[in-house]
Amino acid sequence: MNNFSSSNLFRLADLGCSVGPNTFTAMQNILEAVQHKYQSQGLASKIPEFQVFFNDQGSNDFNTLFTSMPKERQYYAAGVPGSFYGRLFPQSFLHFVHSSYALHWLSRVPEELLDKNSPAWNKGRIHCTNASDAVVDAYAAQFTKDMEGFLDARGKELVSGGMMVLITLGCPNGMPYSNLPTGLMFDFLESCLNNMAKEVSNSTGLLSEGQVDSFNLPVYAASPMEITELVERNGCFSIERLELTNVRTEADPKLDEKACVMHLRAGFESIISKHFGNDIIDELFDRLVKKVKESFHLILSSCRGGTQLSVVLQRK
Amino acid sequence: MNNFSSSNLFRLADLGCSVGPNTFTAMQNILEAVQHKYQSQGLASKIPEFQVFFNDQGSNDFNTLFTSMPKERQYYAAGVPGSFYGRLFPQSFLHFVHSSYALHWLSRVPEELLDKNSPAWNKGRIHCTNASDAVVDAYAAQFTKDMEGFLDARGKELVSGGMMVLITLGCPNGMPYSNLPTGLMFDFLESCLNNMAKEVSNSTGLLSEGQVDSFNLPVYAASPMEITELVERNGCFSIERLELTNVRTEADPKLDEKACVMHLRAGFESIISKHFGNDIIDELFDRLVKKVKESFHLILSSCRGGTQLSVVLQRK
Repeated sequence: MNNFSSSNLFRLADLGCSVGPNTFTAMQNILEAVQHKYQSQGLASKIPEFQVFFNDQGSNDFNTLFTSMPKERQYYAAGVPGSFYGRLFPQSFLHFVHSSYALHWLSRVPEELLDKNSPAWNKGRIHCTNASDAVVDAYAAQFTKDMEGFLDARGKELVSGGMMVLITLGCPNGMPYSNLPTGLMFDFLESCLNNMAKEVSNSTGLLSEGQVDSFNLPVYAASPMEITELVERNGCFSIERLELTNVRTEADPKLDEKACVMHLRAGFESIISKHFGNDIIDELFDRLVKKVKESFHLILSSCRGGTQLSVVLQRK
Repeated sequence: MNNFSSSNLFRLADLGCSVGPNTFTAMQNILEAVQHKYQSQGLASKIPEFQVFFNDQGSNDFNTLFTSMPKERQYYAAGVPGSFYGRLFPQSFLHFVHSSYALHWLSRVPEELLDKNSPAWNKGRIHCTNASDAVVDAYAAQFTKDMEGFLDARGKELVSGGMMVLITLGCPNGMPYSNLPTGLMFDFLESCLNNMAKEVSNSTGLLSEGQVDSFNLPVYAASPMEITELVERNGCFSIERLELTNVRTEADPKLDEKACVMHLRAGFESIISKHFGNDIIDELFDRLVKKVKESFHLILSSCRGGTQLSVVLQRK
């Protein structure tokens, strides 16, 4: 608390904020938690000013973010364009970092996946699920490199004592991707794309096998063990909490096929249409709904070890 | 200098930055000037990190600003949406404020200009040039209110010793608007709009007299005396420099009619088309070119006392 009150300004950042509104809720919750902590310690008169930095890549739609920002906010707001795998803020600038469902996006598809002469050439596949060891290793290596960059940058940007809350796709230690609901969904998507490529190559040509070969989802679900190793190797942070939970709670409505596809579509439509064009999208997701309906028992019986990784780190 | 080096971070803001690229040049120039000052004082090893805040209204196109930002910049960048007539930053946060050709935009058209029962009802006019005293007073009162808000906010946001450089449309003390090139241009524009309204009301109806009555340019060119009074009344700043200069230099190519209209169009097309619709724009500016050609001698012989106001203030 002392670090924060010295300048009477609490600076927090949401990394990978997208266009809202989830980020506004998250930032407001953190702000209220900090205010509450001051109040509960009898320091209500010392509650700091708040400044919130909304970060996402430069290609993010900041116009939408800025125009939908809550009018009655209790903080000074700023948008910060750029990759969170590198430096975004000055030295010892931030008191709190939040990032939700952003860190599973790799900064890039590992190069070797696109190299026909590499053992990691990922022909006919769109992810490391069920892929060769070389592909799995390439994904893991890219995640390691990205996460090293992330921890290194945040280690410099956070004040001593500053907190970092990361929520991302996770995977139980040693569990193969194909046992995860996400892995299964990627598999179904891959199968739909491959089928379309086979059919279409004989007719309209909207989609070629070569296009599927060169498409890979830059997404990685890390295990608690991987995160622990990376944080310990970085050395700037103590792990305050690290747990895998199930995203669904008992309060959730029944999970159904359409909801599964809708979630996937919300997350990946943009990257798919960028590679394959808009014309295939509706057809692809119609097929995916059918595919998921046929194999929904696999989703239901897939990993229950949790796929949401929550990590709380403190800057030493 | 001491204030800046204590945290080893120099924070500067460009207020009313628009979409670039002028703002990038201005910020880079300031950054280099600060670096140079450190170097010339033998403090090269203490050159701070820089953080630049690009501010404009929430409706500004920050996407364009962010995607056109120099890649090799020497500063951490952030965008800050919101009106600079209110608070944008925490207490004692900024070391340097820059604002170029933004402060002459009033936060709003004075209400009474649109009230048929007010002495300031601005029928047939689009500005305070050649208008009644009540209209001139309403413009001046709005500028005063806006500028009070601006100085009050910056007084809180700038550190003691922090600098503020403001460049805006200006007007020599006591000079009527109609003697200024800008005033003349507004007059010509008004005359074109009124002519179009008269002609068009008998034919296609693209433009009505009522629309001209309800349109007013929210632009105000302040005099050095007005600025001095406002700064002194605010009390937070010392005036380090305040001067009216001519925008044109001898190095400029010859000023011609088309260039005059092009400048006006660049600044005001958006606000005009928002009020009157896009359909009148080309016709309006074609007429304006003709009008300016007829009366160009008036522009050439208009005020030479300078219309660019440069103000340098230091936070006490």
